[in-house]
Amino acid sequence: MYLPRITTRAGILCRPPRRIPTGLRGFRTSPIVSLNAVTGDDIKHFKSFLPDSAIISTLAPGKASNDDLVPFNHDWLEKYIGKSKCVLKPRSTEEVSKIMKHCYERRIAIVPQGGNTGLVGGGVPTDNEVILNLGNMNNVRSFDPVSGVLVADAGCILENLTNYLEPYNHIMPLDLGAKGSCHIGGNVATNAGGLRLLRYGSLRGTVLGLEVVLPNGEILGELKTLRKDNTGYDIKQLFIGSEGTLGVITGVAILTPPAPAATSALLLSLPSFSKVKEVFRTTKTNLGEILSAFEYFDRNAYDLVRRHTGKDALDEGEVGDSEAFVLIETSGGKREHDEAKLEEFLEQIYAKEDFITSGVQSQSQDDFLSLWSFRELIPEAAGKMGKVYKYDISVPVSEFKAVTDTVRKHLKALNLIRAPGEEKGGGAKVIEVIGYGHFGDGNLHLNVIAEAFTSQIEAALEPFVYEVVESLHGSISAEHGIGLMKTHALQYSKGEVSRRYMKRIKQVFDERGIMNPGKVFEID
Amino acid sequence: MYLPRITTRAGILCRPPRRIPTGLRGFRTSPIVSLNAVTGDDIKHFKSFLPDSAIISTLAPGKASNDDLVPFNHDWLEKYIGKSKCVLKPRSTEEVSKIMKHCYERRIAIVPQGGNTGLVGGGVPTDNEVILNLGNMNNVRSFDPVSGVLVADAGCILENLTNYLEPYNHIMPLDLGAKGSCHIGGNVATNAGGLRLLRYGSLRGTVLGLEVVLPNGEILGELKTLRKDNTGYDIKQLFIGSEGTLGVITGVAILTPPAPAATSALLLSLPSFSKVKEVFRTTKTNLGEILSAFEYFDRNAYDLVRRHTGKDALDEGEVGDSEAFVLIETSGGKREHDEAKLEEFLEQIYAKEDFITSGVQSQSQDDFLSLWSFRELIPEAAGKMGKVYKYDISVPVSEFKAVTDTVRKHLKALNLIRAPGEEKGGGAKVIEVIGYGHFGDGNLHLNVIAEAFTSQIEAALEPFVYEVVESLHGSISAEHGIGLMKTHALQYSKGEVSRRYMKRIKQVFDERGIMNPGKVFEID
Repeated sequence: MYLPRITTRAGILCRPPRRIPTGLRGFRTSPIVSLNAVTGDDIKHFKSFLPDSAIISTLAPGKASNDDLVPFNHDWLEKYIGKSKCVLKPRSTEEVSKIMKHCYERRIAIVPQGGNTGLVGGGVPTDNEVILNLGNMNNVRSFDPVSGVLVADAGCILENLTNYLEPYNHIMPLDLGAKGSCHIGGNVATNAGGLRLLRYGSLRGTVLGLEVVLPNGEILGELKTLRKDNTGYDIKQLFIGSEGTLGVITGVAILTPPAPAATSALLLSLPSFSKVKEVFRTTKTNLGEILSAFEYFDRNAYDLVRRHTGKDALDEGEVGDSEAFVLIETSGGKREHDEAKLEEFLEQIYAKEDFITSGVQSQSQDDFLSLWSFRELIPEAAGKMGKVYKYDISVPVSEFKAVTDTVRKHLKALNLIRAPGEEKGGGAKVIEVIGYGHFGDGNLHLNVIAEAFTSQIEAALEPFVYEVVESLHGSISAEHGIGLMKTHALQYSKGEVSRRYMKRIKQVFDERGIMNPGKVFEID
Repeated sequence: MYLPRITTRAGILCRPPRRIPTGLRGFRTSPIVSLNAVTGDDIKHFKSFLPDSAIISTLAPGKASNDDLVPFNHDWLEKYIGKSKCVLKPRSTEEVSKIMKHCYERRIAIVPQGGNTGLVGGGVPTDNEVILNLGNMNNVRSFDPVSGVLVADAGCILENLTNYLEPYNHIMPLDLGAKGSCHIGGNVATNAGGLRLLRYGSLRGTVLGLEVVLPNGEILGELKTLRKDNTGYDIKQLFIGSEGTLGVITGVAILTPPAPAATSALLLSLPSFSKVKEVFRTTKTNLGEILSAFEYFDRNAYDLVRRHTGKDALDEGEVGDSEAFVLIETSGGKREHDEAKLEEFLEQIYAKEDFITSGVQSQSQDDFLSLWSFRELIPEAAGKMGKVYKYDISVPVSEFKAVTDTVRKHLKALNLIRAPGEEKGGGAKVIEVIGYGHFGDGNLHLNVIAEAFTSQIEAALEPFVYEVVESLHGSISAEHGIGLMKTHALQYSKGEVSRRYMKRIKQVFDERGIMNPGKVFEID
């Protein structure tokens, strides 16, 4: 997996010019001359305050092999592959500070890494940066059951925090597919969205305090547990969603809501996309404060999961040629009240002609999980069918179908869509274009499933998709971030003035450019 | 009201050294030599693109008198009094941009001003800055009833926006006592909290986009209406709560929730403060998603309002010597469900011995308003009794009473509390110390009511109060901001590293220091 090093100039991050693989823009093809590569002497220095178990390095006096570094150098999709020779796993904020101070003085680049579950290559090196993995900082620091404020090390795994809160009858305000691996620090650094945003809002509201180690080793210790604090600029907001480019988040104070007493799920098929908006409005009116998710998927996504699982979630005859599907979740304090509200809601929408073709409501926790799994299996089903170009975009909800249709039409016009029954020919084609996502948040996941990743398909998709998003005043990244994957497309969502000031802010915190170079911004 | 100018040096902001009035720290006693005063030529320039009605100035060729400028130079408490000679009231973002460009080039200081309802002197000049009043920018730009996103000019009055939303059955996510005058732009610039924060979260979550004119006239046009947008640093967060020190907010995109179908209020008296926490926990469990406010006031505050209004809110005999009071509000989608939940909640807390001494529940909208007015009249009642030192702090909820008691004890030890029946003597004394506020948000309003503002009382209170807050890891300003009033106390809430980086961020946006000088930071 490793390209041979052709030239080596000691002390300089240096690698041979490398073909930019399809879909992997942003990789450096020339060294950043202002930065230094980590050396054996640096490792010796790290050993002076870190135990052997906290250093994984192929450089003397370490004994690790390249294979030992694979879980840190490769992102989980195996899409982005770095060449770091050194992973550090500090156990405390002070150790992080010492590492940063040294790397700052030596001008060594750093990639902060959480659970390595990102989708845009933000948490793996683009070259031979030092990987600062937070996995050993995994203690809960405090929890106050009255205020619901949890203070935790950045390396705590999201699911572990959820489990920790269970006896207190509280839940984390966010939930993601990656919860078993992702770190809370990584969640904050990428401003993760997920499944509970509609109900509990974004991390910008629920994160109350952060402890951050700055590139020069200084500790920005604003681990406040206050819901309200109007004392000047809220600097922590800059680190939320900064993807490791401004500093290393080491501690998080977060507001956790009480666990709901009852949850229900409802899967509905709708004759046409236009009805989705109307059903959404009705849920908002009738379900109000108990509405906790409103997920959408189109017919192609629904059929994909049916084929993948061999199961129908709804009655095939009733579904007929329905073109849209929604999964509605409620979370409330009293089951009988929630069910009464749901019943009234269903009566209303069934009373309207041509609103709903079919529906099923969970009657048990198993039902609940099974309905959710139908929604959650979409990415897996897409991955089984082919190679998936994933676009995570925000657009007005009324445009969800139009965006998917426009992309499909565009690919068809370029003769890049495989016709029904068509065999795989010489050039790989697109098998399917599907749209699904968090309708309630305006977040569409557009997946283009192809026989293979090809430069022809990619050229057809980009910048086309980004231009469509820009024309709708949308966002090219709703929740996945920019990372390495979308640095070239930032201008479709952020204007020139914003980008310029973003760079100036980067300069304020990281004037030596050692923090996660090549992420969020392209290397100048 | 105006101090005479002793020396005048053309082109230089210049005023005589002035005694700093009690409680008015931060006023400039010497000119800022890097800034220029506005002149008749500047007014001529403004006239080239602004109509006469948009310029109120005592400088030729304007015809305004000093009295015309009083509503802009004086804060509403008459505590902070500026000496601006020029108020500009632009009608569009482009006009704001032209004004800023000119002031940037000429190095003229600017105070952005909304409804002038602030409590810390952030919206009035400290000297002769130009006042940029947003009152003429008061149009709703758009509202999307599906997503609930409202886009409005910064100068829209909060209550007008609430009224605008009413036919759509939506409400603003914030509500304040000053709603009839305050501007949404000012709300955002000060990160206003208010009465709905417990339910709808802070502006950091609900403000989706901002349009800001930067000091150099550039327009940062990030008026996004998206719930999710992870494309680099969220620069708009810096302007939320920046109190006009970084730029001028001209447009706001904000997420508005659907109006609740039913609201209820409940006023309870509790035998001791320790029960408040337990009642709060019970409300969170039993009322869950319908709990929308949990307000606290101590016995002194309760008695103050009783005396002020001549009315009892609760049965005097039942209340007895209860020491704490809470006002609980619910907002839900279905009245019968909410009432069932409230009933169950009341059964639970009444079942526990010594939990509640007395209680009353609203049975009508009039009841609801009357119970709320009892809470809302506290500041007015305090103001009628004497001069009020107001501290707006965040501390752990379990310390609300301890903080109030500590301050009272401290004043008593210094013989600064008036004894019962004691006549006003030579030196003014403190009449009462009361504590009330948003318990659910951890926000305590500590009011020290004195016979008069005196340097002796002030010296007894500050830094004492701030030191108490600091020792509890609290905030010296929960929702009012820093403004001019608390610049000297910033260090009690923000560490050295934070303050240094805050100043560097100020430097990024306002390197000429023309934006609201002396606010948030003391003038170096």
